[in-house]
Amino acid sequence: MNLERKPVVSVIGAGESSPEQDADAEKVGRLLAERGMILACGGRGGVMQAACRGAIQAGGLTVGILPGLDLRDANPYITIALPTGLSHARNVLVILAGQVVIAIGGGYGTLSEIAIALKMGKKVVGLNTWRAEDHRGAYADIYEADTPEEAVSVAASFISSNGPGE
Amino acid sequence: MNLERKPVVSVIGAGESSPEQDADAEKVGRLLAERGMILACGGRGGVMQAACRGAIQAGGLTVGILPGLDLRDANPYITIALPTGLSHARNVLVILAGQVVIAIGGGYGTLSEIAIALKMGKKVVGLNTWRAEDHRGAYADIYEADTPEEAVSVAASFISSNGPGE
Amino acid sequence: MNLERKPVVSVIGAGESSPEQDADAEKVGRLLAERGMILACGGRGGVMQAACRGAIQAGGLTVGILPGLDLRDANPYITIALPTGLSHARNVLVILAGQVVIAIGGGYGTLSEIAIALKMGKKVVGLNTWRAEDHRGAYADIYEADTPEEAVSVAASFISSNGPGE
Amino acid sequence: MNLERKPVVSVIGAGESSPEQDADAEKVGRLLAERGMILACGGRGGVMQAACRGAIQAGGLTVGILPGLDLRDANPYITIALPTGLSHARNVLVILAGQVVIAIGGGYGTLSEIAIALKMGKKVVGLNTWRAEDHRGAYADIYEADTPEEAVSVAASFISSNGPGE
Repeated sequence: MNLERKPVVSVIGAGESSPEQDADAEKVGRLLAERGMILACGGRGGVMQAACRGAIQAGGLTVGILPGLDLRDANPYITIALPTGLSHARNVLVILAGQVVIAIGGGYGTLSEIAIALKMGKKVVGLNTWRAEDHRGAYADIYEADTPEEAVSVAASFISSNGPGE
Repeated sequence: MNLERKPVVSVIGAGESSPEQDADAEKVGRLLAERGMILACGGRGGVMQAACRGAIQAGGLTVGILPGLDLRDANPYITIALPTGLSHARNVLVILAGQVVIAIGGGYGTLSEIAIALKMGKKVVGLNTWRAEDHRGAYADIYEADTPEEAVSVAASFISSNGPGE
Repeated sequence: MNLERKPVVSVIGAGESSPEQDADAEKVGRLLAERGMILACGGRGGVMQAACRGAIQAGGLTVGILPGLDLRDANPYITIALPTGLSHARNVLVILAGQVVIAIGGGYGTLSEIAIALKMGKKVVGLNTWRAEDHRGAYADIYEADTPEEAVSVAASFISSNGPGE
Repeated sequence: MNLERKPVVSVIGAGESSPEQDADAEKVGRLLAERGMILACGGRGGVMQAACRGAIQAGGLTVGILPGLDLRDANPYITIALPTGLSHARNVLVILAGQVVIAIGGGYGTLSEIAIALKMGKKVVGLNTWRAEDHRGAYADIYEADTPEEAVSVAASFISSNGPGE
């Protein structure tokens, strides 16, 4: 008996979000769950909570990697809440948890997570998120999706092309 | 709709273990799963793998918090593998993941985890594990269980007396 | 007797750098040391090494916060080398070490550090580094300096206006 | 020009300490500074503050690796204060900072640091600190010194026998 492990997708975005972002995030969460994927996030409110709500309503599993020490900081749609006490360094763990990253809107925290993902060689799919240009005029390699459906579909294709494991 | 979150128990012990320790760990894992508890551990071999095997065979859920960056370091009975890249600092996260800790045998890594748990005010149940005495002659507050059944039963009672949340 | 603590400036940039970036970094390091400031960085090569060389040649003090566990990964101009074993999460510590951040060129790692600094409310001075634009068209708040002299002078003014301590 | 890096010794012990422990810690700090060694610690009060006071009074250099985000948590005898925001995981960094560890008294936090040091293969010198016995009856490998002079002298000999680098 050997477990077949489900793919994990990190969903990132601001803790304070607009109704449009919440609608996108909820749809992303639902679509990930329908494809049998686990959703990892920072465990808090805003985009994270909306995405988790979508995933749980579709019968999915959600992991919340919290910056603080208190379980009660997790949003109500987190299946497994992991307090870390690492404050800002916990962002790195959110990115490490997923095989692919979907970024929805977001502030500086989200930008740092996108950059860490790219630094690690992970694929990042963006929905109305940051654009960044380095000193030579090269743009950060973020796939810009137009809809939640496209975001999840592209994320899934990145995972299949990576193959299982890493 | 609001999720009722399952309790999480951290199971710690050495990556190289004896057949007796493996038998104890497997039983601990099974009993935790039968009580509907999630098992968190360091995700590697030895005691961790035996405990996860027991949990998975009983239909449970296991979380492996890995020291490195590679998913493939997880043992085959991990439902959710979380690479951290934090090396030794990941031990702290293993302890933070659970509401209670069960320690089985173990070397210096396990001793450090027991001490971190006690420092945070978490209850620690030991099965043939470390004893430690401070400079005033006071012993570290480890509940010494004689059997896997007692370890899990005591761990469960610690969780109920804490109540939900923290 | 109470120590008056010197200000610390985090200097960030790529481990592989151009001769122009190295010249800028070395000058930044020298100017920081001449103003009695401590230089914190990631401890490795490229921009980090050039900045440390400048600081040490001017009699300054340098702190290298290393991603790995081995002291020998530090560049030869690090006064105090701190192995962390945290891999990517160590970037956060580099930013936390300084009261202000100077970014020189840089890849995705540098972008993640800039974003973390801004998230924490720290001032960031850039020398030919990233530009980033969020989904509403707002630019990340990086002060774009034209010369090493301007970068250090602006960084120093940010520290004075913050006052001592935090 | 290539820097000859000074050895670093991690001094650990409780944030609340007795007058005897403070006297021991201050002497340890002074003796380390007189031998040209850098003192690393958790940056807070108690044993840490007493050791730093001794080091600074003897013209030494001290590094404080803080659990929180606020520089002002550092004791007044810290030359270089490094906020980490890592809470409990910062203990691991305190141990990683030194080539050798000196433990004075201490509670569970100190026990966790001793165990992490031993796990990493670092030598630990104790002054009235913990004793720990594993399930086979083997004791944790802590060198028990009787005086601050002996503790520092033994620590120095451990460093020389390791040679430079690691």
